[in-house]
Amino acid sequence: MTDPETLADRVQEGDLRLHELEDHADHDTAAAARRLLVERESGTDLEAIGDYAFDAERAEPNIENMIGAAQVPMGVVGPVPVSGGAADGDHYLPLATTEGALLASVNRGLGVIRSAGGADARVTKNGMTRAPVFRVAGVAEAAETVDWVSQNFEALAAAAESTTSHGELLDVEPYVVGDSVYLRFAYDTKDAMGMNMATIATGEACELVEAETPASLVALSGNLCSDKKPAAINAVEGRGRSVTADAVIPGELVEERLHTTADAIAEANTRKNLVGSAKAGSLGFNAHAANVVGAAFLATGQDEAQVVEAANTITTMDAREREDGTTDLYASVSLASLEVGTVGGGTKLPTQAEALEILGLRGGGDPPGSNADALAEIIAVGALAGELSLLGALASNHLASAHEDLGR
Amino acid sequence: MTDPETLADRVQEGDLRLHELEDHADHDTAAAARRLLVERESGTDLEAIGDYAFDAERAEPNIENMIGAAQVPMGVVGPVPVSGGAADGDHYLPLATTEGALLASVNRGLGVIRSAGGADARVTKNGMTRAPVFRVAGVAEAAETVDWVSQNFEALAAAAESTTSHGELLDVEPYVVGDSVYLRFAYDTKDAMGMNMATIATGEACELVEAETPASLVALSGNLCSDKKPAAINAVEGRGRSVTADAVIPGELVEERLHTTADAIAEANTRKNLVGSAKAGSLGFNAHAANVVGAAFLATGQDEAQVVEAANTITTMDAREREDGTTDLYASVSLASLEVGTVGGGTKLPTQAEALEILGLRGGGDPPGSNADALAEIIAVGALAGELSLLGALASNHLASAHEDLGR
Amino acid sequence: MTDPETLADRVQEGDLRLHELEDHADHDTAAAARRLLVERESGTDLEAIGDYAFDAERAEPNIENMIGAAQVPMGVVGPVPVSGGAADGDHYLPLATTEGALLASVNRGLGVIRSAGGADARVTKNGMTRAPVFRVAGVAEAAETVDWVSQNFEALAAAAESTTSHGELLDVEPYVVGDSVYLRFAYDTKDAMGMNMATIATGEACELVEAETPASLVALSGNLCSDKKPAAINAVEGRGRSVTADAVIPGELVEERLHTTADAIAEANTRKNLVGSAKAGSLGFNAHAANVVGAAFLATGQDEAQVVEAANTITTMDAREREDGTTDLYASVSLASLEVGTVGGGTKLPTQAEALEILGLRGGGDPPGSNADALAEIIAVGALAGELSLLGALASNHLASAHEDLGR
Amino acid sequence: MTDPETLADRVQEGDLRLHELEDHADHDTAAAARRLLVERESGTDLEAIGDYAFDAERAEPNIENMIGAAQVPMGVVGPVPVSGGAADGDHYLPLATTEGALLASVNRGLGVIRSAGGADARVTKNGMTRAPVFRVAGVAEAAETVDWVSQNFEALAAAAESTTSHGELLDVEPYVVGDSVYLRFAYDTKDAMGMNMATIATGEACELVEAETPASLVALSGNLCSDKKPAAINAVEGRGRSVTADAVIPGELVEERLHTTADAIAEANTRKNLVGSAKAGSLGFNAHAANVVGAAFLATGQDEAQVVEAANTITTMDAREREDGTTDLYASVSLASLEVGTVGGGTKLPTQAEALEILGLRGGGDPPGSNADALAEIIAVGALAGELSLLGALASNHLASAHEDLGR
Repeated sequence: MTDPETLADRVQEGDLRLHELEDHADHDTAAAARRLLVERESGTDLEAIGDYAFDAERAEPNIENMIGAAQVPMGVVGPVPVSGGAADGDHYLPLATTEGALLASVNRGLGVIRSAGGADARVTKNGMTRAPVFRVAGVAEAAETVDWVSQNFEALAAAAESTTSHGELLDVEPYVVGDSVYLRFAYDTKDAMGMNMATIATGEACELVEAETPASLVALSGNLCSDKKPAAINAVEGRGRSVTADAVIPGELVEERLHTTADAIAEANTRKNLVGSAKAGSLGFNAHAANVVGAAFLATGQDEAQVVEAANTITTMDAREREDGTTDLYASVSLASLEVGTVGGGTKLPTQAEALEILGLRGGGDPPGSNADALAEIIAVGALAGELSLLGALASNHLASAHEDLGR
Repeated sequence: MTDPETLADRVQEGDLRLHELEDHADHDTAAAARRLLVERESGTDLEAIGDYAFDAERAEPNIENMIGAAQVPMGVVGPVPVSGGAADGDHYLPLATTEGALLASVNRGLGVIRSAGGADARVTKNGMTRAPVFRVAGVAEAAETVDWVSQNFEALAAAAESTTSHGELLDVEPYVVGDSVYLRFAYDTKDAMGMNMATIATGEACELVEAETPASLVALSGNLCSDKKPAAINAVEGRGRSVTADAVIPGELVEERLHTTADAIAEANTRKNLVGSAKAGSLGFNAHAANVVGAAFLATGQDEAQVVEAANTITTMDAREREDGTTDLYASVSLASLEVGTVGGGTKLPTQAEALEILGLRGGGDPPGSNADALAEIIAVGALAGELSLLGALASNHLASAHEDLGR
Repeated sequence: MTDPETLADRVQEGDLRLHELEDHADHDTAAAARRLLVERESGTDLEAIGDYAFDAERAEPNIENMIGAAQVPMGVVGPVPVSGGAADGDHYLPLATTEGALLASVNRGLGVIRSAGGADARVTKNGMTRAPVFRVAGVAEAAETVDWVSQNFEALAAAAESTTSHGELLDVEPYVVGDSVYLRFAYDTKDAMGMNMATIATGEACELVEAETPASLVALSGNLCSDKKPAAINAVEGRGRSVTADAVIPGELVEERLHTTADAIAEANTRKNLVGSAKAGSLGFNAHAANVVGAAFLATGQDEAQVVEAANTITTMDAREREDGTTDLYASVSLASLEVGTVGGGTKLPTQAEALEILGLRGGGDPPGSNADALAEIIAVGALAGELSLLGALASNHLASAHEDLGR
Repeated sequence: MTDPETLADRVQEGDLRLHELEDHADHDTAAAARRLLVERESGTDLEAIGDYAFDAERAEPNIENMIGAAQVPMGVVGPVPVSGGAADGDHYLPLATTEGALLASVNRGLGVIRSAGGADARVTKNGMTRAPVFRVAGVAEAAETVDWVSQNFEALAAAAESTTSHGELLDVEPYVVGDSVYLRFAYDTKDAMGMNMATIATGEACELVEAETPASLVALSGNLCSDKKPAAINAVEGRGRSVTADAVIPGELVEERLHTTADAIAEANTRKNLVGSAKAGSLGFNAHAANVVGAAFLATGQDEAQVVEAANTITTMDAREREDGTTDLYASVSLASLEVGTVGGGTKLPTQAEALEILGLRGGGDPPGSNADALAEIIAVGALAGELSLLGALASNHLASAHEDLGR
């Protein structure tokens, strides 16, 4: 058995390469050796990074050149009653973040929603996408390829689905730009976030396209997917789950708990989240949905880089007059492209798996896809709470200063 | 001393509220009690979440309702020589992620860059922004407000800078939409990411605006900042650091190490990252910059939710012909709005602080701002390596299949 | 019979209103009276405006409060051979504009294309859209509405098509944002641009939606159509015709006629039209397609305000190496949302109808839709010529200045 | 003297080229010959196109290959009182269009605004832009170039302004993407729209940049200008005039004249123009501003292709409660990048010059720039009227159908 010191020496002597250590020792020893090496070269002490709470081997599918773990504080907010298409009942939502006051804010929002009887949520669209780009000679071949694709969906589905026991091809949408043809494949990937499944299935379908049309594959992803980029195609057409959550907050609650009015919150939302975002040329019409999406992703083992598009959210806040003249607040968030899964990827890691268990959503759902749907709905309600709390605070400050104005 | 069981009982009995536990016990006991409560209510065992490697009190500025920590595998890539405006010399870059193959891919790219003599990097713009929205009676008052602002920069700077020992007001840009006026304040916040500093300073300046003009503050953030939303205003004008990194890879290296050609990589980049992103209505013209930005943010204690705009990247890859006829590859990434800091926020947490130490960039730089600049430059080089590796792989596969085509 | 003076007097005396004059005189006299009135009030002489070349009555479907006509210089460019899905053979293209040098530039480009054997063009997608917005109580009703719509396409098609003898409903795509549901109806409107047809048909379908679901119509257009706004939904999914045109220009021609090289043109296109537009946060990745689209729209009676989205174009220019080592230029334009018609709207006016006759495309095509397809293809080739000419000029200047550089 | 027939024969025989006819005859004869030729080749009769109301020579700066003119019906709307920064008093606005009902709709809106006491308008920003793109070796040279530019504004201004007696350089903003550097020059071009002035002045400044920095000019326009493309950089930062217009419509007027309520109009605006446009990924948050902008541009000789960005408009409509409980409507439009001029370009053509005279804005203003400012303000009020009328109609229909609902 090789010890960390020996391994580190051998790397420094050029006898071994940094990523080969797992071939010569168990995973924890390899990580220790790598830490030792980095400590020597940078003159640091990586004690905390080395103090991780799992077998390094368990992280093998998730990382290379491992030296340990980043530890990010995790808390819970809630519970909150969610009435969803898949989620039901009261839920604590685990969030991991380094941003102070975030959980307090979301928790305040959830408290208000709980007092209002809970939130509704629905997944209204579902499809993980992959969009390869092909080269053709020109527009004549492009048109020919588009025609073939539109007439051979079943053959493409058979090819794609031959690679997966779970995934189902839903749609193939062609886009032509000069001598490039993009085909956006959309799949139902059930409880998996599904990028890998979609990539492999699309790869198989591409072989059919290449065999039957003049098109030659240039790249399995041609950026119309669009993965980890803030693209309108996702904001408009969705990717992963398109999910909406809303609640009606009685005027009395708005006053007692948020110290403001539905009208003031609606005004702040319109000037900031709608008009302000419009002027900014934004794809995000919300206050801080990314905070909740990011923290929930980190806690539950989702792909952190997908926060980029998963946080694409439109927040609406409107005053609704009751028959008795009281004005309630209607609040909603609509997340267009929330890519989530409860199996695969980072969901198997120990702390992340436990976080999913807090939600009762670890592993595959019954029926398949229902766990990921429920996760999407609960995250959306968390985002709704965050929006409600922050806009309530803005409106409340504003009212306060309005009162001061009167006192001048 | 109160034990976790008693505390959990009291919460369940309604005697205490979930967020009040730190008032009745030390932070670790409070977290233990909260775990216990969640375990009871969700029927789970939160052993891994509870096995964190730091004093809970240390996370107080970062989280509320703490139950423990999310542990995300961390590895290192590099070393790579960076010739930057602030960064200099060889660096290992720590990355935390759950996405398998990411570090291997980035490491491959860094290896190629290292063999090519390293990468250049420059911060070409720097300014943390906060953009409050004000209400006016109409366009006449809006014009009056804009006039006042443009003539009173010094007074605004004095007010804003009175709240901070480090921050410096660089610019105030007004935008009018009907009866809303948005003022985008930009600050040099040195080695801090600077959101809090910018918010507090802007709050002070807003009081002056309200006192001297007809404008009334509606919200301290009017979404033209734009924080944690994918907005064109950031992609165009920048936020935090605007940083660019590039390298020229000799044709021989492209062939030997990436098994393809500069022309093939340039073609893949154009069809995917430029034309594909154009067709997708994207603000992100890259392959997977968010992967590197997100993993570096997680490792070094940056704000994960800011990955949304921090990953805004344009990647270019062009063939450059040498005088001897050899074709080299010019590769660059330009990140418009990379918000980073080496002090404050999550950078003080143990594993995150150690990660910054690996880079030699923990704490304030000399001169102030140089550590954050260097961090931006090194992350940019990491993103460059990720782009190079992925596009090389795509082009290489394509070449392979092109060869197969010939063999048919 | 009432004379212009008397009518103008009566309007000034408050006895008649400006828009009522056609009730009291023939259309030309009414226009003359209105001119007289405006001349009196503004102290001007509207001789040229009054010197129009058609019966005022003929413009009744196109204008109210008519005083005469704007006269915009019209010229022709070409001829150019177009090999399209619908267009075929040589065509002169009429263009009306006030921008000097535009026709000369397009004509130069068409000359190069003609020498290269002509251009290919294809309409790859066709659908005029109208997207009403409905109010629902919340996300539960939104989901219910979306479900009903997705299961009742045939009923919606029957309702919509009951209002038109030509139009055909192709698709209804639902989008949910909180308590708003948007349904994007797409129609094949044959040779008509089709906005009115689509609006009327959608109105009828909306009644069915209101009768069968909880949704209440708020507005027949909810801006996801999206008409006369530069929206990503059009750039991505198309509106009217999605049309692509391309040509391969032999290297010799590039050199002789454009005085530059394929490589230099490709470089200018990449830096300007791709990377520059990317950095600008643009939906238009071209040099000046709007010039050609706008001038062709004006000449042929299209809706000038639709130039906003009709000009959405991605231009690609790439060097293609021949086996003998010569480098040719591949040039393409892809217009995502070109709304054109050869019947209805402004196409019936005298000068506009004559312009369509120059193209041989006045009135309905055989088969229906083929005339509008051909018009789209020919305009696309015109835009291609404009791009080729301008980029050639830029590259040529660059080469020239490069030569000067060498001479320094 | 050569007659049209002879000239046409000579072109058909290959003896003359189509664009050379003005070298052999006066401009009207040349146009007649060209018509004859097109008539022969296309078998048409171009009588109306040939019946234009001006000397062909007068159109020489505006067109090549002239065959005649497109005649577009022109009408007037108004008068409306405008209280602007430059515009003042009552104005008729001439509009040229082929879209039936447009003038009636705008006129209805203007009538409501007139009854409400008129509209306010202000130009809040002014700058015509041109943004060349330069090539550098890499990021180090890019940073060097950016530094030089930021330190040499005065020298750049001197160079630029040496080419113009009117224009004034306001700003040069640098943007770096890899080895491309874009410099966005902004000018005050007074009463000229100013594209040519800006282009020539920027060309001169570019020579200085090339002489003093490592940068080499690739193209005088690098698409960050951004001309005739729908780019966020214009929507955010403006181009030409940024102009806002608004009015407060008393609740009684909303009811009597628009048959609806301020609340209903505000709701329609929010769901359609704000939320709908947000979901569409749009840069246009309005109902149909392009209709008014396009028709005013056509009437007054502006550049029709610039409607693309000139129509970039955010419309807001909000209910404002009076102290007596009545609810008024606040309505505004904000056009970010309205490029207009009253000298040069198409403004000199006879019908267009007369249209400017109707407005009292033909030629240069006193002080310089005031005529173009006033034109921008009046067009903005026209756009406001169009928005008001259309949204009123939508809200009114909705109320009607709401009443029907109650009657079921």
